[in-house]
Amino acid sequence: MKIAIDAMGGDNAPQAVVKGALRALDEFSDLEIELIGNESLITPLLEGRHTNVSIFHTEEKIENDDEPVRAVRRKKNASMVIMAERVRDKKADACISAGNTGALMTAGLFIIGRINGIDRPALAPTLPTLDGKGFVMLDVGANADAKMEHLQQYAIMGSVYAEKVRGIKSPRVGLLNIGTEEKKGNELAKQAFQLLSQSPINFVGNVEARDLLSGAADVVVTDGFSGNIALKAIEGTALSVFAMMKEALTSSFTAKIAAAVLKPKLKGLKKKMDYSEHGGACLFGLKAPVIKAHGSSDELAIFHAIRQAREIVANSVSSTIEETIQNMQLKGD
Amino acid sequence: MKIAIDAMGGDNAPQAVVKGALRALDEFSDLEIELIGNESLITPLLEGRHTNVSIFHTEEKIENDDEPVRAVRRKKNASMVIMAERVRDKKADACISAGNTGALMTAGLFIIGRINGIDRPALAPTLPTLDGKGFVMLDVGANADAKMEHLQQYAIMGSVYAEKVRGIKSPRVGLLNIGTEEKKGNELAKQAFQLLSQSPINFVGNVEARDLLSGAADVVVTDGFSGNIALKAIEGTALSVFAMMKEALTSSFTAKIAAAVLKPKLKGLKKKMDYSEHGGACLFGLKAPVIKAHGSSDELAIFHAIRQAREIVANSVSSTIEETIQNMQLKGD
Repeated sequence: MKIAIDAMGGDNAPQAVVKGALRALDEFSDLEIELIGNESLITPLLEGRHTNVSIFHTEEKIENDDEPVRAVRRKKNASMVIMAERVRDKKADACISAGNTGALMTAGLFIIGRINGIDRPALAPTLPTLDGKGFVMLDVGANADAKMEHLQQYAIMGSVYAEKVRGIKSPRVGLLNIGTEEKKGNELAKQAFQLLSQSPINFVGNVEARDLLSGAADVVVTDGFSGNIALKAIEGTALSVFAMMKEALTSSFTAKIAAAVLKPKLKGLKKKMDYSEHGGACLFGLKAPVIKAHGSSDELAIFHAIRQAREIVANSVSSTIEETIQNMQLKGD
Repeated sequence: MKIAIDAMGGDNAPQAVVKGALRALDEFSDLEIELIGNESLITPLLEGRHTNVSIFHTEEKIENDDEPVRAVRRKKNASMVIMAERVRDKKADACISAGNTGALMTAGLFIIGRINGIDRPALAPTLPTLDGKGFVMLDVGANADAKMEHLQQYAIMGSVYAEKVRGIKSPRVGLLNIGTEEKKGNELAKQAFQLLSQSPINFVGNVEARDLLSGAADVVVTDGFSGNIALKAIEGTALSVFAMMKEALTSSFTAKIAAAVLKPKLKGLKKKMDYSEHGGACLFGLKAPVIKAHGSSDELAIFHAIRQAREIVANSVSSTIEETIQNMQLKGD
């Protein structure tokens, strides 16, 4: 199995990317990695290793503030663009980038292309829960607007992923809504509730944003606008509470002493909220797996993203999604 | 000034409601309070006091799990329904309930009625920020769907409230969105951005959910679906992090000792996230102020809701909203 990685994407590129790749190669003997980016920067980081790892040299890259569609169209030699082309040309089975999210979605859609039967790809991170199991939420912003059919497709894609890769039997799929009762929500949510009830998934009904971290469902579907707001509200609140905690714990001498004793516990706490251990956000609905690693990914986060990509390929997630959608359409006809 | 209060609404009614009312009467000499509910339960709690406080006796009440519209229509003698009628009949200037939110919105809309020029009322809580100043968000669920004109009305209502009651000169109004750039968002957000740019408010552009608690704006407008999701994601995450913190801090003997030292600091932290000090959620757009106090309100939260209602009445928020909307419509014609 071969995974193409944009070595130049993310705040800590190429160091974190290359080191994460080497770690994954140590762990998985069935893995081949192609690093795409500036050879003169990557080579020294490889420390003489060459088994199962190769470099595809390019000097161009997409910046974080580049306008996504224009960047993908004009920067034809950008590491991210070449990465997507390697997957399109079947030179690699999956790809990973920690770079510009919008550009990666654009490259995925226009270069790799959609699965037959999927109207829109969806961006799907795995978020933490109090019990440590986590849940998959989609869409968190690949498409701001959605129709009920899209939410049904998101539900199937998330469900296949949760079952095949996360090992959850008959994953509970919830609809993000503003109340748990059947008739709650905006027009989209009301329509989607009906459609999801008739879909080949384990639909458990509406879930509220306040119950997400308690693990109300294994897969949570919503339109990209609401999903992005829920995701960022969770992130922002967790960061704010931790910042306030830090301030409180360093505001006096005795507090500092006590805080020093608690440091390992509090670190464990922060780690529990850190979702990079679950890998990156998957871009579902494309012909091959595309993973968006967090922009601030370190070596470990890159390693987890690679592990995740490997499991998606090994468990044929993309083809299972395609088959499920086709079966559903056949039955619907 | 007279405020009508649903003495039977909320988890701690009537005790917390009556005690909060007495506290407000101690503080504000210009205040009269009418408590609506079961006289035999309320009278003992008044401890013989009768200056500026009266009881309107009724035994019926709306329960939390009552279907809102049906409950308001059928329970004609419910404390909440009578409370709204007292405001409609100009026997009181404002009203407060900690009971069923949906029923209160229904009673406000159908009994008290909308301000001329306002299409839809909006539910507007004041949420905490790291600097302690807080911000007003609306709508958080009075109406799940919205059009751009509604968001413009929300912006004006929130802006008038922030200026008149919260004392913020030229309050910064932001649009909740999934990116800060002008062209980001779903169709509604894109349209609303244009309309808000031309409105008589200090529009500061898009704000992301992750920046809400950092105080990105004084007033944040959004549709009721997205607003409710943002609100509940913030609440749920804060509660989850505090629960995790509690677990971490009591997981060993040394942790317990250290945690005991830090207890006052950590309590202060939790208090900072507690928005009941800013009062209840206002239901804006009605002919008279209607305040939804949190269901779990204690005496202090009720006191703050009364203080808030008093300031809204004293600063003529409802009539200023009406005038601003009319001026805008005149200019638009």
